[in-house]
Amino acid sequence: MANLTIVGTTPRKVDGVAKVTGSAKYAADFNLPGLLYGKIKRSSHAHARIVSIDTTAAEALPGVKAVLTFRDVPAIPHAGAPAPREGGLVADQLILTGQPLFVGDGIAAVAAITEEIADEALGLINVEYEPLPTVFDPVLAMQPDAPRLHQTEQNLVMPPVHIQHGNIEQGFAEADYIIEGVYSTGRPHPAYMEPNACTCHFDGDGKLTIYSSTQCAFMVRGILSQVLDIPLHKVRVIVEHMGGGFGAKQDLYQHEFVCALLARRAGRPVKMEYTRYESFVGSKSRHPVTVNLKQGVKKDGTLTARQVKYVSNTGAYASHGPGITWVGCEDLSSLYRCGNNYWADGYSVYTNNPIAGAFRGFGGVQAFFALDTQMDEIAHRLGMDPVDFRLKNAVGEGDASPSGHLLNGDALAACLRRGAEEVDWYGRHNHPQPAEPHRKRGWGVGTEMHSSGAFPAIREQSNAVIKMNEDGTVTLLVGIADLGTGAQTAMAQIAAEVLGLPFDRIRVISGDTDVTPFDIGAYGSRTTFVGGGAVFKAAQELKRQLLELAAAKLGASAAALSIRAGRVFVDADPRQGMALAELVKGEGGQSPRTLIASATHEAEVAYSFAAHFAEVEVDTETGQIEVKQVVAVHEVGRAINPKGVEGQIEGGIQQGIGHTLTEDLVVDPRTGRALNASFVDYKMPLAMDMPRIKTIILEVSPDIGGPFGAKGVGEDPIMAIGPAIANAVHDAIGVRFTELPITPEKVLRALRQKEKMTGSK
Amino acid sequence: MANLTIVGTTPRKVDGVAKVTGSAKYAADFNLPGLLYGKIKRSSHAHARIVSIDTTAAEALPGVKAVLTFRDVPAIPHAGAPAPREGGLVADQLILTGQPLFVGDGIAAVAAITEEIADEALGLINVEYEPLPTVFDPVLAMQPDAPRLHQTEQNLVMPPVHIQHGNIEQGFAEADYIIEGVYSTGRPHPAYMEPNACTCHFDGDGKLTIYSSTQCAFMVRGILSQVLDIPLHKVRVIVEHMGGGFGAKQDLYQHEFVCALLARRAGRPVKMEYTRYESFVGSKSRHPVTVNLKQGVKKDGTLTARQVKYVSNTGAYASHGPGITWVGCEDLSSLYRCGNNYWADGYSVYTNNPIAGAFRGFGGVQAFFALDTQMDEIAHRLGMDPVDFRLKNAVGEGDASPSGHLLNGDALAACLRRGAEEVDWYGRHNHPQPAEPHRKRGWGVGTEMHSSGAFPAIREQSNAVIKMNEDGTVTLLVGIADLGTGAQTAMAQIAAEVLGLPFDRIRVISGDTDVTPFDIGAYGSRTTFVGGGAVFKAAQELKRQLLELAAAKLGASAAALSIRAGRVFVDADPRQGMALAELVKGEGGQSPRTLIASATHEAEVAYSFAAHFAEVEVDTETGQIEVKQVVAVHEVGRAINPKGVEGQIEGGIQQGIGHTLTEDLVVDPRTGRALNASFVDYKMPLAMDMPRIKTIILEVSPDIGGPFGAKGVGEDPIMAIGPAIANAVHDAIGVRFTELPITPEKVLRALRQKEKMTGSK
Repeated sequence: MANLTIVGTTPRKVDGVAKVTGSAKYAADFNLPGLLYGKIKRSSHAHARIVSIDTTAAEALPGVKAVLTFRDVPAIPHAGAPAPREGGLVADQLILTGQPLFVGDGIAAVAAITEEIADEALGLINVEYEPLPTVFDPVLAMQPDAPRLHQTEQNLVMPPVHIQHGNIEQGFAEADYIIEGVYSTGRPHPAYMEPNACTCHFDGDGKLTIYSSTQCAFMVRGILSQVLDIPLHKVRVIVEHMGGGFGAKQDLYQHEFVCALLARRAGRPVKMEYTRYESFVGSKSRHPVTVNLKQGVKKDGTLTARQVKYVSNTGAYASHGPGITWVGCEDLSSLYRCGNNYWADGYSVYTNNPIAGAFRGFGGVQAFFALDTQMDEIAHRLGMDPVDFRLKNAVGEGDASPSGHLLNGDALAACLRRGAEEVDWYGRHNHPQPAEPHRKRGWGVGTEMHSSGAFPAIREQSNAVIKMNEDGTVTLLVGIADLGTGAQTAMAQIAAEVLGLPFDRIRVISGDTDVTPFDIGAYGSRTTFVGGGAVFKAAQELKRQLLELAAAKLGASAAALSIRAGRVFVDADPRQGMALAELVKGEGGQSPRTLIASATHEAEVAYSFAAHFAEVEVDTETGQIEVKQVVAVHEVGRAINPKGVEGQIEGGIQQGIGHTLTEDLVVDPRTGRALNASFVDYKMPLAMDMPRIKTIILEVSPDIGGPFGAKGVGEDPIMAIGPAIANAVHDAIGVRFTELPITPEKVLRALRQKEKMTGSK
Repeated sequence: MANLTIVGTTPRKVDGVAKVTGSAKYAADFNLPGLLYGKIKRSSHAHARIVSIDTTAAEALPGVKAVLTFRDVPAIPHAGAPAPREGGLVADQLILTGQPLFVGDGIAAVAAITEEIADEALGLINVEYEPLPTVFDPVLAMQPDAPRLHQTEQNLVMPPVHIQHGNIEQGFAEADYIIEGVYSTGRPHPAYMEPNACTCHFDGDGKLTIYSSTQCAFMVRGILSQVLDIPLHKVRVIVEHMGGGFGAKQDLYQHEFVCALLARRAGRPVKMEYTRYESFVGSKSRHPVTVNLKQGVKKDGTLTARQVKYVSNTGAYASHGPGITWVGCEDLSSLYRCGNNYWADGYSVYTNNPIAGAFRGFGGVQAFFALDTQMDEIAHRLGMDPVDFRLKNAVGEGDASPSGHLLNGDALAACLRRGAEEVDWYGRHNHPQPAEPHRKRGWGVGTEMHSSGAFPAIREQSNAVIKMNEDGTVTLLVGIADLGTGAQTAMAQIAAEVLGLPFDRIRVISGDTDVTPFDIGAYGSRTTFVGGGAVFKAAQELKRQLLELAAAKLGASAAALSIRAGRVFVDADPRQGMALAELVKGEGGQSPRTLIASATHEAEVAYSFAAHFAEVEVDTETGQIEVKQVVAVHEVGRAINPKGVEGQIEGGIQQGIGHTLTEDLVVDPRTGRALNASFVDYKMPLAMDMPRIKTIILEVSPDIGGPFGAKGVGEDPIMAIGPAIANAVHDAIGVRFTELPITPEKVLRALRQKEKMTGSK
């Protein structure tokens, strides 16, 4: 690996120019001739039965070309997403419903020649509701007398998750102290720049082409095929470019079904693009989770037991709820050892809130906020330094990971040590405080680990096809779409590195189900790890073919040849050799030598780790928390594209700051209406809100299953920043916050409370 | 082969519904946002030097977005087409030229916001020409004092073709009679329904996408890449549907270069679509050829020697001229034996006519018109029946083919015998003549052979990739575009047959250079033979993978399994087995088993044969020839899709009737202007002009290299009909026509001449 020339560098992103020049086409940019605009009529009740629905006026409106209600669409329950773990596939959602379960649930749809007419037509659909009782709090929803959403026991999506290792009672008995706490998180929304959108078109032969902003093109193909009753080879899903997904776009949405059905009904292409409001309420937020966490610890700082109750509010439909509860419960078994005495109960609960779904961090954000906050509390109780306490219990070589796999290397400790060094952790309290007495400065640390891929829930598999062109350039076909993360660039780097080609000789085609091999999708920090692994293998096979061909032409054995900069060299005599274009081109104008390779890559799991060190200033007069600087140390195995990794880390920190301090989709508990579903009212951190960030990438524990040792890094950066900030706030003002987001109101209220208790400011 | 269930049947064409419903998109149907319309300014002189060209007024016209003259485009000579035979690649054409060589040569181009503005702008380009001397007749062009078009000796495109076998003098010495004749053919035009067209678009990253009506997507990619200096992986050529090509669209055209350059210059997509006039003069016609043919024959009808002079008028540029002259000279060495005493000289001559190029039959149409007409003459001279005389000399088992390969089977004799039986050949003169005395009825026979693929000129190779979808459907990726011939349907049949799948489970994607493997193109009767062979092999490999997987699941050896109707069966116990969808689907919602196979197929050559029997009625008062019926017997090895084969045969007969009786693009020998470049003046046979046709498909000589034994059939049907009609006309009125087309004027003139000579009507 010493001789890497392209992996580990940051070439220009392959889609960079297309994006900055505006030529990149997103799902809503395919303005096909005869295009109609589709809109969904959404329930104004959080729980109701539709008594009657009258579309006469809407249908009569000039320009309206199709109207569908829940009565006109196949009543096939589907899972918004596949949850491959056994029993995890909960098909509880209809395309359009006659019994809406949240404010925003789709009940009807129209297609019209303009968006305005479509909107007007929605208003002309007359709906008579019979309101039904609602429940918004998951704890209340589990009560016997709570209204039932899906006729499941206790409104649980699935039977409770239970994970048990060792002997929890004995573990607590061994402890000198037992610490308990309740930690809860808000309902932030991914708020991707590109709202959910798709454009559907049936050709004369009944073949559906759908341009969709989805992380999982093949999954959209599969579910649409089933629900619309079209074979797979007559459904083509195309994802040319995407403006973010963050997990929420790994589900299928009502608009994708509805758009296809409207297109079929109208006999014309239909486009649907969510408004920002729809994106907030009709898409998926993060699950608000309450973690009851109880740990036992010895005086010397050794954790002896951990018990968890993880209650997740999945909203009106299951989506990824069950998986997220599993992952949350699994994650808490690791990161810090607990004498292997572990007990977790997880509950994924239906409520009449908008749907929560997959979101960067997938259950781990909530879990590690609880664990890492409590780790800080325990360190303080024990009088130990929080970093030292963490180091004492940090998982490492030979410890069990959440999935049960044994870890190799001491990546977490390395992150903690490197970060502590970088921020002068042990001298942090010698730094001066701000001059203004109402501004308090503090430092905190947060940590996390995350799996690359979803093994064992999903047996990870990706595929790649690679074609050599006759001028020595290469076309690479991969099924994983690029959400905007730079995945295509990383894929091109991996192929170029393996093949010994200049980077710009690789062209990646992705996100087109007709032409690329199957891929389950871009999520779970799997793209580079699993998808990149398939590219690595396919490129190796192509290289083998090239060397075999070169060996015959150069009269040398393939083993005695290498490829560098697009040229095959005889190792023993580098003057001998030939350009790849020369090698594959047809002689005398003949057809070129056609070289094509495909590979299936199956991966298990790898774990990336991070420690974030955050410095905050709390304004005790306004309650405002300002994050001043973050040092983020990530162990990633191998950074294929270091700037890409940095970008993920910085983006994750930004998103994590939002979740920690400001972002929360507030639902009115009387009506079920979202109260801040707009960028005016829903506050995301902007550039001016960002701290100075230093990212430090460690490559101390490369994974043998990842390309060049690479592990995933997409989700990690959002997970450690929350506890780091919360712990820094405690460091600054001595208040422990266990409920996210930590808004100024909460800070001020806590300070007033503290003042009352202690009589001091 | 006894158990074929899909090959040999005629399922619904895979593109049929898309075409009849109008949803199929052709090259000019991609109306991209911001689209401009491109037009070419064409020379009004057949040979001139441009003294000055002023585009000021054109550029000033509102709506004009780009103007290019020959001075603004790269002066890279290119071959309109690749002619892979050594020395056959003649790069003699410029993108736009300052020294036009025919009326219609491109000298400048514009792109504007409407077609009308573009047309108007062309008129505003001021060109001052210095006329240069012209030559239109190839014999004159070969004279020492003729004007030179390309500074080649005698205006020859290449040194003369010379083919020599045996001892020609000895062959003639052995003969009892020597027969000589001169046979010449006209300048018919393919006149495909879809005029030449393309749409070009550069994305922000400089990647060119071109939707083109081309038979050779990868060739267009290759040549555009070179001339525009863009690497191959940044040029994407897409051919979704085509409205015919017939060989003429296997060249690159000025409009394809110009369109790309205009798009680059304007920074907007540009579409160019030839008018019908442009299609006639700016595209490629068939080569007018004069064949001097001399044969020796013994009294018993044994041919002893054949000598050929083949002079081909290639027009202003080489295009496929050299290849066509080669094939014409090669073809005449076979079909009928000549004691292996053969001598041919071929001349491909530049003149100031519009360019002639590849066209269904590729040199053989002209050759076999000469040979088969003379065969008839000799039979009459010897007093032998024309079929018996042909049977005596017909090539068969062990004889040399034009390419030198030895033939297997007696396919020609089989065609002759089957046709003679069908039409009651030996009793034909007992049939009553028409009641009207001025209508004369006669029967004639014509024969031909044609190679599938262009081996050895081209080392034939095709590629296919085949993907199994998780519902048991299959997506097949092939590089060959479907010109409208039904190739995709045949490919799907081959794959379905090999895989044991119902036909409608296969979806073919073709004609997209980014996503399919390389293919040289759809021409030379190679598509089913070579391309289908690649599909056959790829499907076999996929089947192997499926059976291997099934063997593991069913606990049986792969050899003990078979697949029928989409289901794997244990041969010994058909109750055991599973559906393919079951076999490949992921268990418990997991990713499916991804199966993908690719294959490269290299083929040599196969020969198909045909005998056409035509009955005509000649009206001696009007000179009109009416073809009453045709019996066409074709030996094709294996008819993958019998209706498709019939369609090719019927279409070839229609086109051949046109060439024989009416079609000829007439060029004024004073000005070089085409006089009938419109469908008003250029007469193609319409439905009402068509005879009753009976097609008989023989499968007596399957080729081991072709899928299921199939050989090509695209070109054959146009080759035997010409001599069959000419010989029938002789049978009807006793006049031998040796110059095509046989127009009413020629018939009347010949009848008057005959009357003068014999004093009788």
